Amino acid sequence: MPTYHAIQWLDGTLRLIDQRVLPHTFTHIDYHDYREVAAAIRDMVVRGAPAIGITAGYGMALAARRSTAADIVTLRSDLADAAVVLRQARPTAVNLFWALDRVLKRAADPTLTTLEALRAAVLDEAHAIYAFEEASNFQIGQNALPLVPDGAKIIHHCNTGPLATGEYGTALRVIIAAHEAGKRVHAYVDETRPRLQGARLTAWELQQHGVPHTVIVDGAAAHIMRTVGIDLCVVGCDRIAANGDTANKIGTYGLSLAARAHGVPFYVVGPTSTIDFDLPSGDDIPIEERAQEEVTRIGDVQITPDGVIAANPAFDVTPAAYITAIITERGVVYPPFAENLAALKT
Amino acid sequence: MPTYHAIQWLDGTLRLIDQRVLPHTFTHIDYHDYREVAAAIRDMVVRGAPAIGITAGYGMALAARRSTAADIVTLRSDLADAAVVLRQARPTAVNLFWALDRVLKRAADPTLTTLEALRAAVLDEAHAIYAFEEASNFQIGQNALPLVPDGAKIIHHCNTGPLATGEYGTALRVIIAAHEAGKRVHAYVDETRPRLQGARLTAWELQQHGVPHTVIVDGAAAHIMRTVGIDLCVVGCDRIAANGDTANKIGTYGLSLAARAHGVPFYVVGPTSTIDFDLPSGDDIPIEERAQEEVTRIGDVQITPDGVIAANPAFDVTPAAYITAIITERGVVYPPFAENLAALKT
Repeated sequence: MPTYHAIQWLDGTLRLIDQRVLPHTFTHIDYHDYREVAAAIRDMVVRGAPAIGITAGYGMALAARRSTAADIVTLRSDLADAAVVLRQARPTAVNLFWALDRVLKRAADPTLTTLEALRAAVLDEAHAIYAFEEASNFQIGQNALPLVPDGAKIIHHCNTGPLATGEYGTALRVIIAAHEAGKRVHAYVDETRPRLQGARLTAWELQQHGVPHTVIVDGAAAHIMRTVGIDLCVVGCDRIAANGDTANKIGTYGLSLAARAHGVPFYVVGPTSTIDFDLPSGDDIPIEERAQEEVTRIGDVQITPDGVIAANPAFDVTPAAYITAIITERGVVYPPFAENLAALKT
Repeated sequence: MPTYHAIQWLDGTLRLIDQRVLPHTFTHIDYHDYREVAAAIRDMVVRGAPAIGITAGYGMALAARRSTAADIVTLRSDLADAAVVLRQARPTAVNLFWALDRVLKRAADPTLTTLEALRAAVLDEAHAIYAFEEASNFQIGQNALPLVPDGAKIIHHCNTGPLATGEYGTALRVIIAAHEAGKRVHAYVDETRPRLQGARLTAWELQQHGVPHTVIVDGAAAHIMRTVGIDLCVVGCDRIAANGDTANKIGTYGLSLAARAHGVPFYVVGPTSTIDFDLPSGDDIPIEERAQEEVTRIGDVQITPDGVIAANPAFDVTPAAYITAIITERGVVYPPFAENLAALKT
């Protein structure tokens, strides 16, 4: 387990590592208001699908705690309002909605008849979401071990470590778990423009865990497959449709095409909380378009000429046909995904 | 024709636009010594395969002009020494070697019997190289016109405009020529990490020419093909092997795989000076590995944690099988490339 925690609940305070300033500055921000938590998700103080879900859960706990409601009906109404605000923070990752729905469902329990009991139940559900992701992440690493050969060279996209998930990580956990199990692995880290989560966060996390790695620009991945030889690709996921189509960080789809061309296994890694059984296919996943400045500037430095238009889709959709398997806490799911994912639905 | 000139010969001075500081600063550097010219090529004051060749030609003209040789044998020896230095500036683009060989061959002409005649011949050959590339580039744009439909959406990688070639450009000329011919075209500009030639230089050149364009991160190209729909991709080339395998800026190969997956025509564009008939296949093209700092830093800003290792292959090789056609000044060459490129050899 790492010595840092992206998300901590400290006696009524939500404490987040400010991931925007890593790796050069390691600092925390404390939150007491759910509206500030929604802003933190939107501005990417915290990011990564599972971490967003956990954070939203604690955002609801803050809303419950700080509500001035004098009766339980009003408190439930305040929670519903908070969920609306948090739900709008980011559109693509389904874990956010999953976590909010979990908390709202728990809060609707008719046996909760006092303000204190409802507040306690909301916080308990937030803790349960964290615990679910923590246990899921650990199990994902165990489930993936047989898929990682000794000596494996692995391409990883974006960031999917403890920073993105709460405790262990998803796709990055696959690499770290293999390393901890004594396998010699080498990670090729896509820098992941525009926000450079790979170069900034994944490289930092691999350093913390002592895993050998090399940072590359995203455009070099196919060349590395062709010249160095890659044994597998691992990527996270922000939403998996019922047919296995997967939304993940922009660049994932292109990486999957390169993997397919080279016969490299391409694994999507995530907890079952990332599966959206209500969505038939990836065509229905809303793709967040973020500010142009993420492309035209790097940090404070403008790289394009003045007046240039940039497109900045934050995610793309990898069709199920290009995915070798989906690694979840409940096992490794192979095609046909529609059938085999449905079997996970409980 | 643009109102800027990447390379100018001004009465004994070689004047280059400093492309490292574009688009924010438009400035020139004057050169009088071939060793400084070699450093300018290495440091990418000037870049782009045809522009490197032209610059090397003028580097030889400077070497001839500044040589203190008192006899023609010594002057030829000084020129041979200068060619060795210039040849080492960058390893991948063949135009550099092609230009130096042209100048050395001209200098070896036994009818040149005076220092003055030899100096004049070297300068004349440098001018001839420039004129060849200028005429080739213009013709390339004409030859490509039938391949660009009205309303075309076109992905372009790296920079291949006048800055990269001397006057008109190669792959970017295809887009500009279609625009000038009255076709409605829209360019999607890969930013082209690590050195951002797309975001910095191609966006600037398209602004200068009034061509509508959108900058994207390299990882978004496949997503744009899938969602926006792309009619063709155009890329330049640093060396084309006899079988059609093509070395070009890192990221080109991955783009070709995405184009293949979407049935998008993928055109390599360059003058015949880029064909290396002596090289049977792309496996034999040396790939320049540049400094890690181009990946770990952007401008003066370090993006990775301290101590991170980065790989920085500057080019990759796209196998001929993924190339729809090679557009040259002598026509559009289709597969089988080995046979049809050989027919261009004169």
